[in-house]
Amino acid sequence: MSEPSPSVSKKRTIGALLFPDFELLDIFGPLEMLGVLPDYFEIVTLAERSDPVASAQGPQTVIDRTFANPGGLDVLLVPGGRGTRREADNPAMLDFLRSTYPKLEYLASICTGSGLLAAAGLLDGKRATSNKKAFDWPQSQSDKVTWVPEARWVEDGNIFTASGVAAGIDMSLALIATLLNDKIASRVAEHTEYDWHRDNSWDPYAALAGLG
Amino acid sequence: MSEPSPSVSKKRTIGALLFPDFELLDIFGPLEMLGVLPDYFEIVTLAERSDPVASAQGPQTVIDRTFANPGGLDVLLVPGGRGTRREADNPAMLDFLRSTYPKLEYLASICTGSGLLAAAGLLDGKRATSNKKAFDWPQSQSDKVTWVPEARWVEDGNIFTASGVAAGIDMSLALIATLLNDKIASRVAEHTEYDWHRDNSWDPYAALAGLG
Repeated sequence: MSEPSPSVSKKRTIGALLFPDFELLDIFGPLEMLGVLPDYFEIVTLAERSDPVASAQGPQTVIDRTFANPGGLDVLLVPGGRGTRREADNPAMLDFLRSTYPKLEYLASICTGSGLLAAAGLLDGKRATSNKKAFDWPQSQSDKVTWVPEARWVEDGNIFTASGVAAGIDMSLALIATLLNDKIASRVAEHTEYDWHRDNSWDPYAALAGLG
Repeated sequence: MSEPSPSVSKKRTIGALLFPDFELLDIFGPLEMLGVLPDYFEIVTLAERSDPVASAQGPQTVIDRTFANPGGLDVLLVPGGRGTRREADNPAMLDFLRSTYPKLEYLASICTGSGLLAAAGLLDGKRATSNKKAFDWPQSQSDKVTWVPEARWVEDGNIFTASGVAAGIDMSLALIATLLNDKIASRVAEHTEYDWHRDNSWDPYAALAGLG
């Protein structure tokens, strides 16, 4: 897609934070939605080290920038996946999140990525959500967060937290609507033939997981 | 997810065929759905050469196997993306598709990936679909295909072709239902909090693109 609106001139850098055993769709769903707007967004992958990072499903992604040299970032996306349990105890990860957040325009997590934000203390005093089948784990990372069990995604200040895996796609379209406008977000959904759930109170998965 | 059904013992190898400027979600949507079932599926990435391959959206994927040494494959997934136009004129790509198809249990394309299958002659005499906003291009690759403009995905024999981008996720769940069973496919959709469109006649994007 092209045709930038003349009213939107700033090109933002989107950082995709990766770690071993990240969940594939958590990050590549949102990166698709943002990535079809190259006039507005540049995507960079980030990790603790420069080696390729393997997802929980197998495929490995090349890393553009490391924690030691992350460059400028406007938005940081934090996926979930079983690797989050290890990373919640990784001081390098928590330090990176804490030192990077104050410089960001927006921070967004998908699935159990919100557990990492909670472990770093970034959600204290805020509302947030997470994967419905693994809701206990992010809750265990901080008792200063208002965890919202029934929500496709939650926005509080400049932090967006999405529910499990595919919920990140809906959240990323809401983020595009916030950063740019609703018309562009709708065009992205149509372009990618994605049936966008625009209402973040839509969440049948909470009840299915016994949280509704 | 784990808990293999005792009635299903075969572990299949899923090949993800990559080329420069492939569309991120075309391939990583289906790989998520298949990849959460490691007891049933092993994912390998494949390309002409062994270097990492950059997607149309930027992020690069590491390559596990090359055309010269593809190993055994049970299912091959072929994404779309603007790189398909170049690959439709790449004899190495067309030769790989033609020589690999007879050995596969299933072949599946997403978005304009069906244009590559058509260019290789693999869809001749079959029904197929593609991205709705770029329907002319795959049609131009073969006049021996019955192109179906209104369909989320099309199954003909052992070839599945999906519509644009996100349609590949719905198709991959249908493929899981075919390879394993509907119950497992439903569990994957719930696990990934994905609102599966099970009915392949659901396709509002055809009318939006003037094809309905």
